[in-house]
Amino acid sequence: MLLRIQADTDPALLTALAAHLAEKHVRTERIGDVLLLSGDTWALDAALLQALPFAADVQRTESPCPLASREQHGENTVISVGNAAFGRDFVLIAGPCAVESEEQIRAAARAVKQAGGQVLRGGAFKPRTSPYVFQGLGAEGIRLLVRAGHEAGLPVVTEITDPSQLPLFDGVDILQVGARNMQNYELLRCLGKTDRPILLKRGLSATLTEFLLSAEYLLKEGNSRVILCERGIRTFETETRATLDVAAIPLLKKATHLPVIVDPSHAAGQAFLVPPLALAAAAAGAGGLMVEMHPQPRSARSDARQALSAEDLALLSRQIRALLPALP
Amino acid sequence: MLLRIQADTDPALLTALAAHLAEKHVRTERIGDVLLLSGDTWALDAALLQALPFAADVQRTESPCPLASREQHGENTVISVGNAAFGRDFVLIAGPCAVESEEQIRAAARAVKQAGGQVLRGGAFKPRTSPYVFQGLGAEGIRLLVRAGHEAGLPVVTEITDPSQLPLFDGVDILQVGARNMQNYELLRCLGKTDRPILLKRGLSATLTEFLLSAEYLLKEGNSRVILCERGIRTFETETRATLDVAAIPLLKKATHLPVIVDPSHAAGQAFLVPPLALAAAAAGAGGLMVEMHPQPRSARSDARQALSAEDLALLSRQIRALLPALP
Amino acid sequence: MLLRIQADTDPALLTALAAHLAEKHVRTERIGDVLLLSGDTWALDAALLQALPFAADVQRTESPCPLASREQHGENTVISVGNAAFGRDFVLIAGPCAVESEEQIRAAARAVKQAGGQVLRGGAFKPRTSPYVFQGLGAEGIRLLVRAGHEAGLPVVTEITDPSQLPLFDGVDILQVGARNMQNYELLRCLGKTDRPILLKRGLSATLTEFLLSAEYLLKEGNSRVILCERGIRTFETETRATLDVAAIPLLKKATHLPVIVDPSHAAGQAFLVPPLALAAAAAGAGGLMVEMHPQPRSARSDARQALSAEDLALLSRQIRALLPALP
Amino acid sequence: MLLRIQADTDPALLTALAAHLAEKHVRTERIGDVLLLSGDTWALDAALLQALPFAADVQRTESPCPLASREQHGENTVISVGNAAFGRDFVLIAGPCAVESEEQIRAAARAVKQAGGQVLRGGAFKPRTSPYVFQGLGAEGIRLLVRAGHEAGLPVVTEITDPSQLPLFDGVDILQVGARNMQNYELLRCLGKTDRPILLKRGLSATLTEFLLSAEYLLKEGNSRVILCERGIRTFETETRATLDVAAIPLLKKATHLPVIVDPSHAAGQAFLVPPLALAAAAAGAGGLMVEMHPQPRSARSDARQALSAEDLALLSRQIRALLPALP
Repeated sequence: MLLRIQADTDPALLTALAAHLAEKHVRTERIGDVLLLSGDTWALDAALLQALPFAADVQRTESPCPLASREQHGENTVISVGNAAFGRDFVLIAGPCAVESEEQIRAAARAVKQAGGQVLRGGAFKPRTSPYVFQGLGAEGIRLLVRAGHEAGLPVVTEITDPSQLPLFDGVDILQVGARNMQNYELLRCLGKTDRPILLKRGLSATLTEFLLSAEYLLKEGNSRVILCERGIRTFETETRATLDVAAIPLLKKATHLPVIVDPSHAAGQAFLVPPLALAAAAAGAGGLMVEMHPQPRSARSDARQALSAEDLALLSRQIRALLPALP
Repeated sequence: MLLRIQADTDPALLTALAAHLAEKHVRTERIGDVLLLSGDTWALDAALLQALPFAADVQRTESPCPLASREQHGENTVISVGNAAFGRDFVLIAGPCAVESEEQIRAAARAVKQAGGQVLRGGAFKPRTSPYVFQGLGAEGIRLLVRAGHEAGLPVVTEITDPSQLPLFDGVDILQVGARNMQNYELLRCLGKTDRPILLKRGLSATLTEFLLSAEYLLKEGNSRVILCERGIRTFETETRATLDVAAIPLLKKATHLPVIVDPSHAAGQAFLVPPLALAAAAAGAGGLMVEMHPQPRSARSDARQALSAEDLALLSRQIRALLPALP
Repeated sequence: MLLRIQADTDPALLTALAAHLAEKHVRTERIGDVLLLSGDTWALDAALLQALPFAADVQRTESPCPLASREQHGENTVISVGNAAFGRDFVLIAGPCAVESEEQIRAAARAVKQAGGQVLRGGAFKPRTSPYVFQGLGAEGIRLLVRAGHEAGLPVVTEITDPSQLPLFDGVDILQVGARNMQNYELLRCLGKTDRPILLKRGLSATLTEFLLSAEYLLKEGNSRVILCERGIRTFETETRATLDVAAIPLLKKATHLPVIVDPSHAAGQAFLVPPLALAAAAAGAGGLMVEMHPQPRSARSDARQALSAEDLALLSRQIRALLPALP
Repeated sequence: MLLRIQADTDPALLTALAAHLAEKHVRTERIGDVLLLSGDTWALDAALLQALPFAADVQRTESPCPLASREQHGENTVISVGNAAFGRDFVLIAGPCAVESEEQIRAAARAVKQAGGQVLRGGAFKPRTSPYVFQGLGAEGIRLLVRAGHEAGLPVVTEITDPSQLPLFDGVDILQVGARNMQNYELLRCLGKTDRPILLKRGLSATLTEFLLSAEYLLKEGNSRVILCERGIRTFETETRATLDVAAIPLLKKATHLPVIVDPSHAAGQAFLVPPLALAAAAAGAGGLMVEMHPQPRSARSDARQALSAEDLALLSRQIRALLPALP
């Protein structure tokens, strides 16, 4: 961090500042009219420094995400859940957009298991754009999901949309933060205090830096098990629900040690687009996929158009397994 | 709503469906292979209808926002708070991005009052992109804000970011939902159950329909006092923080009976752009403005670059008052 | 311009470089490991400098648009055409999207004159997204337009889409470069060699810098009479054809001495949105408007939905004239 | 195409219309208040129909691109140039952004050949955002490119930016239309009259429909050898030069019979991103790649940051060849 000071600054003021910063584990070195700050500078408030009467300019030079950044953690973070090892092995998460019934989620769980998937997904608290459509089964949905996963030998992931729901999520292996809540910082702070893996989806209009900063909220509270999920960004193109940002995969992998997976289903918006997007994501280096499937796609109560059938999922899984060894 | 049925559908099934829908206050009329549904169709789940074995296609023809839509409420909704009458008179809301100290917010309140503003704003729970910057004074900030407003004779508005904070917001006249939380449906449901006016900001990548649907979440819970605030959308252009969507003003005013105001400060990102954007918004028919000002803009702890000084605000207020009578 | 050099660079190389640059009217000053270049640096190729064996880094610090930039031309450029003085007085340009017939364009010219407009517009070479729709009357359209303008005492503007068309544009007072051709540099170079005013529209996805650089192509060839026209950018929002970027007006006026006008019709896409967008543009400081009108909007052969009638135009013109004196 | 007519329309008018349309190879069938038009309806002007006094509404139901559409041409179009068979075999095009010297382009040609590429690229007429940077060697660049290709046994592709340049392009095997000129319809019409393959790049803010309509301009003039090239779209994300729209690949392949390839270099903007984007494009079903390489990337006079070295290109080519057999 650089603090440019006015030429005629009283040295006594600088000595006082240095002492104050030292308490915050920040070292100060003066080079001409510039103070070079190092150490725990990420905890400093640039606006406060800027407000000092002798400050001419403040510039941050270090990563805005010290905990998520690969600079300080060269090794991939590996997050193990059941048989899945995010950050080390390719992970396939699949399941319905929403848990609809015991029969449906059990059929889905069997299909995911048979397809070689490692994690079962299923929404219980569904954030829906309209208040007039199916909002998920809530607590009952979680109960059904957990039991179906247990029976099939699969850990489960499902979305949480408010801190108050946390007590209902016992037995859920991975807590998902959806795209709409990527900047719901109260939720992030709450989940950062748990010890469960968090699957954090990129917001529809979030830059990669904003995405990493949301991960940083989780890490800062002490939860280091964060999985990043690219799921498409909003652009002018309307043929797809969102434009899958494939470049985000290598960019994130370079910037952070956290696992990076991709949800091709929400970007696609149509089932026939899911396999090519899934293969593209794998080829670009994604560490896993989260795919929507439904035992009977036509009758799905939400996002029916983009759900794969059990057969489609099994086929895609074989295609991915054929692809992975051919990648550099 | 249109439900296209398969040609050979058993009439008994249709009779049963009609009876089922009648219980939900939905009327059914058959025209060839199409069932025309009317009445409380907004409460129907299109996906469920689609899943009927004899359904070929379901199409919604009515507004997705029956409560927010102007079709069913021709008159403007007027929301009175202190001397402000949103939806009837032009309203000027101003104040600092964040409450920083008693002295600062009191100075701001005086400046807003002197400039002819009707509402004082000031953030206490600040959603910030980075966890390492000033997050607001929290409960203490609200206390200072409410007191400063009281002294100056101004109602106050401040942002709420989680349902659990609500008890701290006693004395706050208008609850603000920020752009990042426009689709935080748990928060909307909670606020929809209060009787306080809600200032709902458009999300950075929200379409106007999605914006109205978020308002619909509030209305559906019983709170009819919702103020919509356009504040810029995210585009490729980086000269501004966001691109103010001026067309949203006449489009929203045509689509809904709710008051529509504009925040030019967050779109601008720079103080010199605030007045032209504010004047443009007024000229396009906005019913009010929410402007960031700071007694000492240079030392503001957040968004310093876009804050107007007290003098700037007074000047802008005079310019707006000169403009309004010249508008059609 | 800054050229950072490697620490151990042979001084003889630097002396040779300085001599070489001096021939190009570029001065060189060494400060530590940095060479500060000034003068006609805009003519230097940064990539060539970067390729020097002793170059560590090259950075441009000056405006990329020396001719369009206000830094070097503080005064507004005023472009007089007929009774219009772009850059000094507010100018209203109006007329049909396309010239369709003698009767139509004469009726339009009379309506524009009566409404107090200063320039008549009408397309003859229409760039249309589909090859199967009306592409304009071509040379005949220009002939009709020029005659109608002459009769009504109005200068005319029409779009040119290829250098080869130039001979057909005799009698056309202002040559328009459309949004799709903003980066058609062959066309810009050709028009930069004429002595006629150019109305340059911003491309649908052009940043303001790219917009100014396209103007720079015209200026560099010797044509200093360039009028900039904001007409909306492409975003995710689909309620309008394009999102009018109102902030572009003050930003461009700050960055350049060239006149800045606005086309609200193509951004709006619907007639009812044109007046509020036009008023917003004027309030934000636009120096003029280009509005689509048609004597019989319903029967227009292109862009019918966004055309104003003669009455609408007259009303809008009165509203603008009422607004202008009330602006700061 | 549907033409809804007013209920009380005089049948004689409809008979006259049907006769008129029959001359244009359009059949008319009346169903209630709707006229169903079929045949060469793509040649009809919907606006003209709308202007009929008895017309209530006009709706296009058929593809807007009859010649590009796969509906009417089920088989892939195969375009053979040298050893490349676009639409049948995977094609690798590579070479420098710009031809800079004989030595450079000959070295590039050798490297492309050695890497197993089938086509050599190299810009001679470079459309550059700024008028002050290297604009290519022009005619001399083409001469050098063609000779280098000839020596290496590679057909060549280079960009044409204006119809007047065509005589200089003798010996060029594939004519490229760049993203900035995708809607330069005069250029498209001119190239549509040649018999050479055209490589058409998607505009930065073009929808897929607009992209296909530009191809349609070429096809309509008689040139059926059009290769489509996705190269990224402009979005809010600034970490990359453009956001590669991988979904465009399967969407275009479904919509059209024309070959679809991808340029990962311009989307990436940085060399390290090119391989993952290239692999992703291949995995999503692209029929080829166009990659920027430079014998000495650091000294490239344009787009240096995104150019691969000869070694990088050879490695990428091996990775692609390993990937292709593993794809479904």
